[in-house]
Amino acid sequence: MEYRFSEKLANMKPSAIREIFKSLGTPGAISFSGGNPAAESFPVKEFAEISSRIFESAPIEALQYSVTEGYPLLRQLVEQRLRERFSVGTADDTIIITSGGQQAIELTCKVLCNEGDVVIAENPSFIGALNAFRSCGAKLVGVDLESDGISIEGLEQALRANPNAKMIYLIPTFQNPAGITMSLAKRKAVYELAQKYDTVIFEDNPYGELRFAGEEVPTIKSMDTDGRVVYGGSFSKILSAGMRIGFFCANQALAAKMVVAKQVEDVHTNIMFQMMCADYLTRYDLDDHIRKIREIYRRKSGLMLESLERELPESVTFTRPEGGIFLWCTLPENSDMPALVRDAAKELVFVVPGTAFNCDPTAPSRSFRLNYSMPADEVIPKGIAILGKLIRSGL
Amino acid sequence: MEYRFSEKLANMKPSAIREIFKSLGTPGAISFSGGNPAAESFPVKEFAEISSRIFESAPIEALQYSVTEGYPLLRQLVEQRLRERFSVGTADDTIIITSGGQQAIELTCKVLCNEGDVVIAENPSFIGALNAFRSCGAKLVGVDLESDGISIEGLEQALRANPNAKMIYLIPTFQNPAGITMSLAKRKAVYELAQKYDTVIFEDNPYGELRFAGEEVPTIKSMDTDGRVVYGGSFSKILSAGMRIGFFCANQALAAKMVVAKQVEDVHTNIMFQMMCADYLTRYDLDDHIRKIREIYRRKSGLMLESLERELPESVTFTRPEGGIFLWCTLPENSDMPALVRDAAKELVFVVPGTAFNCDPTAPSRSFRLNYSMPADEVIPKGIAILGKLIRSGL
Repeated sequence: MEYRFSEKLANMKPSAIREIFKSLGTPGAISFSGGNPAAESFPVKEFAEISSRIFESAPIEALQYSVTEGYPLLRQLVEQRLRERFSVGTADDTIIITSGGQQAIELTCKVLCNEGDVVIAENPSFIGALNAFRSCGAKLVGVDLESDGISIEGLEQALRANPNAKMIYLIPTFQNPAGITMSLAKRKAVYELAQKYDTVIFEDNPYGELRFAGEEVPTIKSMDTDGRVVYGGSFSKILSAGMRIGFFCANQALAAKMVVAKQVEDVHTNIMFQMMCADYLTRYDLDDHIRKIREIYRRKSGLMLESLERELPESVTFTRPEGGIFLWCTLPENSDMPALVRDAAKELVFVVPGTAFNCDPTAPSRSFRLNYSMPADEVIPKGIAILGKLIRSGL
Repeated sequence: MEYRFSEKLANMKPSAIREIFKSLGTPGAISFSGGNPAAESFPVKEFAEISSRIFESAPIEALQYSVTEGYPLLRQLVEQRLRERFSVGTADDTIIITSGGQQAIELTCKVLCNEGDVVIAENPSFIGALNAFRSCGAKLVGVDLESDGISIEGLEQALRANPNAKMIYLIPTFQNPAGITMSLAKRKAVYELAQKYDTVIFEDNPYGELRFAGEEVPTIKSMDTDGRVVYGGSFSKILSAGMRIGFFCANQALAAKMVVAKQVEDVHTNIMFQMMCADYLTRYDLDDHIRKIREIYRRKSGLMLESLERELPESVTFTRPEGGIFLWCTLPENSDMPALVRDAAKELVFVVPGTAFNCDPTAPSRSFRLNYSMPADEVIPKGIAILGKLIRSGL
């Protein structure tokens, strides 16, 4: 039969990144394209111990249906951690466990946006979030990203032009794809604009624990006096990405609606792994574990930056992240970025074209994203050398 | 701030069942309200073995990001099982792993329905599915359920009145909430009507493996010659509900769109438990395990039916399921079902009011749903006796 797809899904394509992911099986491939944490960042031994213990002590609880909101002990431990680490959460807020950070983003948009409602995002931004907004039928309005975060002028202009915008989606810390961190002044300005135009902010912070240089900047949620910030977090980058455990902190009224929406998506998140996270947080030293991950990413980002400095012509610019897992390269004017990405793929070096992160997917880009968390140390210089050679030959 | 919720979510309430679930902690509570499998149905020892093995042999794969479509070996094993057990799947079909059976239902609606599009369902039907359709902004049209399945006359009438209906949602085998199985003749008639009105059918079959009496009836999907049936299945009732692993079998073009929609909901389903399911299917005897579960439910349904026959006045009717986990009681005309449900809850006996399963939530009902899989054997007669006493006193 001929399927009649819904308008909002009819033109959606699979994420370029997830698709690239599939071609990585090729032997010799060097991938700077994923958002995968380093394999060394998974607490394998501890998870093996925890899982044996739970199958011994509480197997039925771990395998039976549970509540949509999440495992109570885990919610409590996350609440405590967010409060202590990030000054996140008030008496009117609650923590809900989600199936990865992705789900919190999608749920927020679903409960707020009718088809055609506006969501404002940094341009470029996380493709998974942009596609989630598209799947809800929302209209995306992109605002330029500057070296210290979103353009405040651009944001005010976007809000003035779309006074009914439902939501501003931001990754203020170690932004995906650009690796940029928003300044404190801009965070305050963003919050004030959200108040002025009465809009919800989604503060996506999956990388916030991964700072390896510079000073911490307070979260926007920590300034939230009127329940307009939904703060999204995840264990993907600090414990395991494949287990799909994320969370959000939001005002109870908003969270209650998101729970209803979650209920019809997956009833609840895998309960065994929720219990495993709770047990990890209780019995092991997460901060110590995170310190080790930061060291790994300090080393890997350093390797990548050194290679970029050595291999790329000066006309190519790149960001210097203080944490997280991505950096962002921009070719000089009149460069053919898509050709570079294609040529690199032919030499089995995979990067994600900047166009994938544009709010308007038809807009051009001279940039591409590089990930340094996943590739092995020894392939980083090798892959960057190949990119450098291709860029020089194309200039 | 005052939240401006999307129209489709603004009036949605949490599922009555999931809410009842929360009050079950009360000591002495007897719950006939859940859809929980019996605790004895979980292969605890095997899962403990499998999980140690995987944390030993493939820990990184089990904790790293994976592909949206699902763990390849599990997809292959499910494909094989569906083909052999249920004659489900053609060369044009594919298997996708979902976060529980729930997600497959929601994704199908999301990729097909614009707001206001019609979904036809049996009335009563599974509340999780009805709420998923509501959350997509679909318009629900209910068709009466008869003792041998959906009314064919009613279905044709609904299709004539809504010729652009996008989807017919059915639970043909051991229906939730009614415990009824659709006859072969009706399955054929439903498929022909779907062809005539060019509509997709979602055949939800989470209980299909749980037959403990009578003869198997072929799936509607086994008759599907033109890719119009999405077949949804789940491991919730045969391995573990809390792990949230389900699947669907659908035409590749339709499945590809559903994968895009899944990607923005949760990227992929917990990969460790996908690997655990695959390992279970490879190394252990699932059919033998299912035989044991069937024996448990044969015994428990028998206990409940005996108790109902003994305790209820003859004017109360109830279904006699040949499998699955639910049966459906209907009070005589002019009975006050909601009062009975409330009074029973006061005596700590929980059942789900029939109104919860109505496509039109404002429509009345004289029925309520009973679950026999979860309560311990000894509380079944006790709980039914309390219901019987309350019903007799109310007549």
